[in-house]
Amino acid sequence: MDAAEFRRRGKEMVDFVADYQENIEHRRVYPDVEPGYLRSMIPSEAPLEPESYEDVLRDVDRVIMPGVTHWLSPHFYAYYANSTSFPSILADLLSSGIGTIGFTWAANPACSELETVMLDWLGKMLQLPEDFLSETQGQGGGVIQGTASEATLMALLSARLKTVKCVQESDPQRSEADIISKLIAYTSEEAHSSVEKASIIGGVVIRMVPTDEHFSVRAETLEKMVAEDKATGYIPFFFCATLGTTPCCAFDKIDELGPICNAENIWMHIDAAYAGCAFICPEFRPLLNGVEFADSFSINPNKFLLVGFDCSAMWVKKSADLTRAFQMDPEYLKHEHQGSGWCNHLHQPYSTHKIHWGIPMARRFRSLKLWFVFRMYGLRGLQAFIRKHVELAKTFENLVRGDNNFEICAEVVMGLVCFRLKGSDELNKALLKQITRTGKIYLVPCKLRGRFVLRFVVCGRTTELRHIQEAWKHITELSSELLQNLFDHEGKEN
Amino acid sequence: MDAAEFRRRGKEMVDFVADYQENIEHRRVYPDVEPGYLRSMIPSEAPLEPESYEDVLRDVDRVIMPGVTHWLSPHFYAYYANSTSFPSILADLLSSGIGTIGFTWAANPACSELETVMLDWLGKMLQLPEDFLSETQGQGGGVIQGTASEATLMALLSARLKTVKCVQESDPQRSEADIISKLIAYTSEEAHSSVEKASIIGGVVIRMVPTDEHFSVRAETLEKMVAEDKATGYIPFFFCATLGTTPCCAFDKIDELGPICNAENIWMHIDAAYAGCAFICPEFRPLLNGVEFADSFSINPNKFLLVGFDCSAMWVKKSADLTRAFQMDPEYLKHEHQGSGWCNHLHQPYSTHKIHWGIPMARRFRSLKLWFVFRMYGLRGLQAFIRKHVELAKTFENLVRGDNNFEICAEVVMGLVCFRLKGSDELNKALLKQITRTGKIYLVPCKLRGRFVLRFVVCGRTTELRHIQEAWKHITELSSELLQNLFDHEGKEN
Repeated sequence: MDAAEFRRRGKEMVDFVADYQENIEHRRVYPDVEPGYLRSMIPSEAPLEPESYEDVLRDVDRVIMPGVTHWLSPHFYAYYANSTSFPSILADLLSSGIGTIGFTWAANPACSELETVMLDWLGKMLQLPEDFLSETQGQGGGVIQGTASEATLMALLSARLKTVKCVQESDPQRSEADIISKLIAYTSEEAHSSVEKASIIGGVVIRMVPTDEHFSVRAETLEKMVAEDKATGYIPFFFCATLGTTPCCAFDKIDELGPICNAENIWMHIDAAYAGCAFICPEFRPLLNGVEFADSFSINPNKFLLVGFDCSAMWVKKSADLTRAFQMDPEYLKHEHQGSGWCNHLHQPYSTHKIHWGIPMARRFRSLKLWFVFRMYGLRGLQAFIRKHVELAKTFENLVRGDNNFEICAEVVMGLVCFRLKGSDELNKALLKQITRTGKIYLVPCKLRGRFVLRFVVCGRTTELRHIQEAWKHITELSSELLQNLFDHEGKEN
Repeated sequence: MDAAEFRRRGKEMVDFVADYQENIEHRRVYPDVEPGYLRSMIPSEAPLEPESYEDVLRDVDRVIMPGVTHWLSPHFYAYYANSTSFPSILADLLSSGIGTIGFTWAANPACSELETVMLDWLGKMLQLPEDFLSETQGQGGGVIQGTASEATLMALLSARLKTVKCVQESDPQRSEADIISKLIAYTSEEAHSSVEKASIIGGVVIRMVPTDEHFSVRAETLEKMVAEDKATGYIPFFFCATLGTTPCCAFDKIDELGPICNAENIWMHIDAAYAGCAFICPEFRPLLNGVEFADSFSINPNKFLLVGFDCSAMWVKKSADLTRAFQMDPEYLKHEHQGSGWCNHLHQPYSTHKIHWGIPMARRFRSLKLWFVFRMYGLRGLQAFIRKHVELAKTFENLVRGDNNFEICAEVVMGLVCFRLKGSDELNKALLKQITRTGKIYLVPCKLRGRFVLRFVVCGRTTELRHIQEAWKHITELSSELLQNLFDHEGKEN
């Protein structure tokens, strides 16, 4: 395919994407396919000779689309969103088209530098303490990770190294392996599974901290566990707080947890993947009070800020904590601007290259997405988007509360409503099964205090009041049928 | 931006990309900017109100382009390539436009399934043993990781868990921490720094294995080290072989190393990020002989198969080794197709979802890039692309060999030529500095046996004979100047 054909096919693809998104609500949001559906629809090996582009595009419609879960549909209420937008797609196309890979500064100066400045922009939108910004020429700054899982892992690994060094300072004979075997991490029992995964990768013990009636970790609970563990010879070193848990969007009390972590030399990382985006609205910002105690903090603009996946923003107070663990300088990555000369001059030792800030070395030019979206929406536009989603969630909450068959299972703070039919888990599982099989809307469950609960997350950029109302109507129709069947069944049994 | 405006702007962006690539060779390949150049060119915070798209695009030209290292330029001869192509860019646009995120099967069935089948296609193109394919309904299969670094890390972590379990089977009292403290990994002294990084993350000791005169790890060297380490109580558990090292594209002798690893219960991972792509050509496939002894294998189609970054293909013989370390099943990820019922039925327990196959949980729809590229080029088209690059490298090698001032520093097997001016490291550093400052071509150095060497990698999809000849002419002009200055200087001193 030469540039001339790319011009033609590219424009067709732009129309394809626009058509897709404009008509997406008429598609069945959850696909009607069985596992293994695809293999038999395409050849078992690659073609020897080139095929025509028409054939490929025809197969997108024939093979791919029937098996897609339509995340951008207004009928999609599952997980948390892929909060993309047209400016984000354009930025991503530009990134693919330029095709540069960022790792050292020299590999793509614009990529390293725009990323650093965009994380400052976003940090200011969130009113992060200056310690986390790189423009203040301190030790802090931001980086784009692929996912929140990677941000959590990087934080845990950095905390591990920092603690090992610290312990060895006072006890130089003690081996790294011995220290690591005594390290203990903490996170909420409601935290995302990636925190536990990070602890497994890091080879450290993790304890799940019980939450209060609002599903929040409280200071006294953590304090007690830390004291217990210290008494038995463990070394508490890492606490991952969650602002906006995956099951029910609960918020740990970081303003009371932070001082404990600081006093105990425990690295506090805050995973605010979804909810953190909403802190650009002043009315939500108080939930972030206490971030000044944190060592690292991350949010996923791809969940709630109109930026397409993948884009997880992470800030640290001391970038050296993050980078020194993995500082390796093979010859093929050296370049003349990495010396200390200019670094000291500009007071930006951390902004030269992002290679040591994450698990992978290389990176796409993802900051373009932030730049395009921030500029095309403006802070006010992004705030309006968040507020609209929260308002729609409140509407759904009120619909649920107005129906005596249902109950709300957790406080509705942002775009997530946790609800269930009053009754057994089996009844609710049956309802979700019907919802999934019908395929008109898509949502996933969670467990809260052992009970099976349905999660309804406003996800779509184009979700409007009428979609919420339709979704509720659909849910109540299915539940009425279920309840009627149950009633009939019980009637027969009696 | 609504769909109508996206149609217009998207088509403009397609033209922007086409224009960029058509005219890229007239750009200075290495940018003429100083670190910190960008910050002062844009505001210090995000705008409150939306800006116009024209302003954003104007700033792409004004702010971004002057700071870009043009990886797609035919004058780019650094690192290894981002080997993208127009079909790959189209597939990526489709992926952005659909906006689904893959993790569980249910999150996007098409994403999970196409990935599994594309890895089978590619595995067959490489003539991998059937153990590595998923269609054979055995225990093996493939997955797309973001980078080779992640593939290596996943392999090392899986090997770590497997060995811990194995040791504990015969010695149940022994703690995981104690076992991990005795684990020892091996890789070539020429291996990529990401292998050492993986060992640091995994908290295990790594030893660098010396290479022979071809920069290859040989069986007897590894065998000796393993014996030594076992004698002092260490547990050898992981060997990362490299096919196509980063400095000089050397090949470890996996056919003689594999049997040792198998005999010693050492997990053999093969990192063939760049060179592995060329194994789709029968004339290069013998270098992969011995892969049958490996536990895992990875190549980066984004380095040499016309697929844009990021796309690292990884295969394992026993997928359970990879997944059981990280198997976590929170309620919000459960779906009705993950039970053993259908899995047993289809004999595809590993193909349901890719969530436990990597560090991040979520993934872009990257297999579309493979599908588009394989079909639009066909196997023959991809082979022709690889052969052309190898031929151009041979041409460059001959030019170097024809000039008595220069020497070739390693065997030229694929698209990389390692060369230097006969003389001191300082002389060669001065030459590279001139090349970088002039900015007409871009290459990076490496160290071979302690000597400073220049790496010339044929990277561009549009690189032709004339570019190679121009590059050589440019290099010899700069070196003549240097040598003349040196001669004049020495003349003065005498």
